[in-house]
Amino acid sequence: MPSISLKGVAMPASPIRKLVPFAEAAKKRGIKIYHLNIGQPDVETPQIMLDAIKNYAPKVVEYSHSAGNESYRRKLVGYYAGYNINLTHEDMIITCGGSEAIEIALMTCLNEGDELIIPEPFYANYNGFSTQAGVKVVPVTSSIDNGFALPAIAEFEKKITARTKAIMICNPGNPTGYLYNKEELEQLRDLVVKHDLYLLSDEVYREFCYEKPYCSVMQLSGADDNMILIDSVSKRYSACGARIGALITKNKEVIAAAMKFAQARLSPPSFGQVAAEAAIDTPQSYFDNVKAEYIARRNVVVQRLNAMPGVKCPNPTGAFYCIAELPITDCDHFCQWLLESFQHNNETLMLAPASGFYSNPAVDGKNQVRIAYVLNIPDLNKAMDCLEEALKQYKN
Amino acid sequence: MPSISLKGVAMPASPIRKLVPFAEAAKKRGIKIYHLNIGQPDVETPQIMLDAIKNYAPKVVEYSHSAGNESYRRKLVGYYAGYNINLTHEDMIITCGGSEAIEIALMTCLNEGDELIIPEPFYANYNGFSTQAGVKVVPVTSSIDNGFALPAIAEFEKKITARTKAIMICNPGNPTGYLYNKEELEQLRDLVVKHDLYLLSDEVYREFCYEKPYCSVMQLSGADDNMILIDSVSKRYSACGARIGALITKNKEVIAAAMKFAQARLSPPSFGQVAAEAAIDTPQSYFDNVKAEYIARRNVVVQRLNAMPGVKCPNPTGAFYCIAELPITDCDHFCQWLLESFQHNNETLMLAPASGFYSNPAVDGKNQVRIAYVLNIPDLNKAMDCLEEALKQYKN
Repeated sequence: MPSISLKGVAMPASPIRKLVPFAEAAKKRGIKIYHLNIGQPDVETPQIMLDAIKNYAPKVVEYSHSAGNESYRRKLVGYYAGYNINLTHEDMIITCGGSEAIEIALMTCLNEGDELIIPEPFYANYNGFSTQAGVKVVPVTSSIDNGFALPAIAEFEKKITARTKAIMICNPGNPTGYLYNKEELEQLRDLVVKHDLYLLSDEVYREFCYEKPYCSVMQLSGADDNMILIDSVSKRYSACGARIGALITKNKEVIAAAMKFAQARLSPPSFGQVAAEAAIDTPQSYFDNVKAEYIARRNVVVQRLNAMPGVKCPNPTGAFYCIAELPITDCDHFCQWLLESFQHNNETLMLAPASGFYSNPAVDGKNQVRIAYVLNIPDLNKAMDCLEEALKQYKN
Repeated sequence: MPSISLKGVAMPASPIRKLVPFAEAAKKRGIKIYHLNIGQPDVETPQIMLDAIKNYAPKVVEYSHSAGNESYRRKLVGYYAGYNINLTHEDMIITCGGSEAIEIALMTCLNEGDELIIPEPFYANYNGFSTQAGVKVVPVTSSIDNGFALPAIAEFEKKITARTKAIMICNPGNPTGYLYNKEELEQLRDLVVKHDLYLLSDEVYREFCYEKPYCSVMQLSGADDNMILIDSVSKRYSACGARIGALITKNKEVIAAAMKFAQARLSPPSFGQVAAEAAIDTPQSYFDNVKAEYIARRNVVVQRLNAMPGVKCPNPTGAFYCIAELPITDCDHFCQWLLESFQHNNETLMLAPASGFYSNPAVDGKNQVRIAYVLNIPDLNKAMDCLEEALKQYKN
C-alpha cells in the first residue's frame, strides 16, 4: 500500500471536532449536551440573504470570475467604505470561506520553511493551514492576566529570524475575544515595515465589537504593501455554510500571484456569492439586535464563570468566545470527562480544550478552555450550572 | 516591500483564461466571438437542482459536516452503484469542486519533490495544482495519431523513479476526448500495484461517453488501496458554479488523512450540496438529450475540421473537447491573432492553445488547439466558417 505524505501525517486533527465521538456517545445515552465548543451561532441568517437564493433563477449555474463576481466585489467596496477601509474591486479575490483566503495567502507569500509569527492562543486551524503550506508557526504567547492583549513588541522582535516572513493576527480574536486597539495595530504596522514582513489580519468578527471601537490594519497608513486582510461572511451574517470569504490587499504583486492560485481552482461558489452580495443590504437593526444579544450572553457567561471558585475569565470585547482558566490541570481530559462521565440533571456541556489553540498543545493552555457563547441565555445558564457542578465533582 | 513566494512566481497563469483581455478588446470593437475556449457548457442545469435551492429554507446557513452532508453522501452511494462502483458514504469527502479534491489528494499522498506521472496533453490546471503541492509533473506524451490512446506501459515504466508516487489520468479525457478502455485501465492498475503507486483518476466527464462503454478504475479489483477517484457535479449537471466535487477512495489511511485537510477548511458549500443531492434524481431523459446533442455537435466539428486543408482531428468518444492539429507553428500566436487581427463577417472564434495542456508549453502542442464543442450547432458551424477562413488568411 502506498504511504501517505509527511504532511498528511503532520496535519493536526481539529481540536474542536475531535471530541465529537464522545458527544455522540453521550447523546445515545440520552444526555442533553450544551454545545459551547464551536463557533456555529444560533443567530438566524438575514432573510434578505435567503430571499436572494430563492429568487436566483439562472438557466445555467456557471463558473463565476475566478476573483468572484464583479458585481459582488464592486458592492463590497461600499461595505468596506462603511468601515473606513478604502478599496477597489480589484483589491479583492473572493474565496471559498476565510479558510481558502488563508490558504492562498500563505502559498502566495511564504516559502516552505518560512516562519509565521502568531500571538497565541490562536484559531486552531492556523496550525493546519501552516502545516499544509509547509510554514513554521512561531508563537508569541499572550497572557490571560491582561485579557490576551498584544504581547510587547520586544517579544515579537526576539522571535524574528532570517526566515520570518509574516505575522498573523485575528482581530477581534478567536479564541480570546480580545479586540486590538489602534496603538497595538500601529506597533505591529511599524514592526512589519521595519522587518519587511507581511501582516495577515483575520477580521471575520468585525461586526462583533463591544464597548471599544473596531480598528483594521487596512485603515493604517504607510504599509499598504504589507497588509493582507482575511475576511468571511460566515459569522457576519450567520452564514457559515455559504463558504464565501475574501483575500484583500492593495499589494498588486500579491493580488496578481494569488489570482493564479484562484484561477487554478476556477471560481468561488456561485450560490454563496449571490447570497453574500444581497446580504450587504442587511439592515443595521439586524446587527444591533445580534450585538445586544451577544453582549447579554457574554455578561451571563463571564459573570457566572468568575463566580465559580478557582475560575478566571477576562471580559472579552469582541467576537463571541472567551477563554476561561479552570482549576484543572488537563483540559483535554476534563472536556472528555464532561462528555463521558458527567451529567447534571441528565445534561452536560461540550467545551473546546484551549490546548489546541496553542502551538504546543502538550504544554500550553492545559488549564484553559474556550467557550463559544452561541446559545440563548437560558441555555447558557443551564450550561454554567453544569460546569459549576462538574468542577465540584471533577478530580484532577 | 516583502517578496512573494517561489510558488507564487512559479504558478502558471491559466492558458485558457490568459487570452481573455484580447477577447474583451475584440468585443469592444464590436466583434462577435464564438467561445470554444472553455468548458462552460450552454446546457441548462436540471430544473430539479434549481428547485431544490428555491425550496431550501434553513433558519441558519450552517457549516456542514467536513466530509459533506451525510444525506448527500449516502445518496451518492446509489448514484455510483448505478455505474457498478461500490462504495459506502465513508469512502467519500465532498469538496469545493473537483479542484479541491485534487488539491487535497496531492497534499495527502505526495511529498514535496515527489513525482506525478501524467499522460499529456492533460487538463492544464494539473500543472497549477502540482506547483501548489510542490510536486513534479512527469509527462508521458500521447499521440494525436492514435487519438491520444494510453501510451505504451513501457513508456510509463521508463519514467518511474524512486520519487514517483502517483499516476494521474483524466477519463474521459479533457482535453483529448479520449475514453480509456478496460484493458488500458487494467494495464495501469497492474503498473501502480507493481510499483506501489497511487492512481488518481479524474472522471468528471463520466456522463459524456459516446459509442464506447465507460470504465472506472474503481471497478477494477485488486487495487483498492491504490485508487483515488476525483469527481465533480460541474459538468454532469452543467452546474460548474455549484462548486461541488468529491475525493473518493477505499483506502482508509488516505480518507483519514484527507479528512484532516477537510476539517481545517471546515466544510464544503452548503447551497451547492443541497442542489447536488437533489440532482441525483435528474431523469435519464435529461442525460439522453444532452448526450445526443453533444454527439451531434461533435460530429459537426470533427467533420468540418477534417475537411479543412492541413487540419487533423481524431474523433473523440468522450467529454466535449477535441484536440485539432492545424497548419500552424505557434498556437499561442494563432489564437491571439484570431482575437486581435482577424474577423469574418464581423465574427471570430476563441480557442485554447494546446501548448498549455503539455508540461512543456514552449515546445509541445505548438500546432494544436483545444476546441470545446459547447455551443449549439448553428453557432458551431459559424465558428468553423471563421476558422476555415482564418486558416486561409493566417501567415505563420
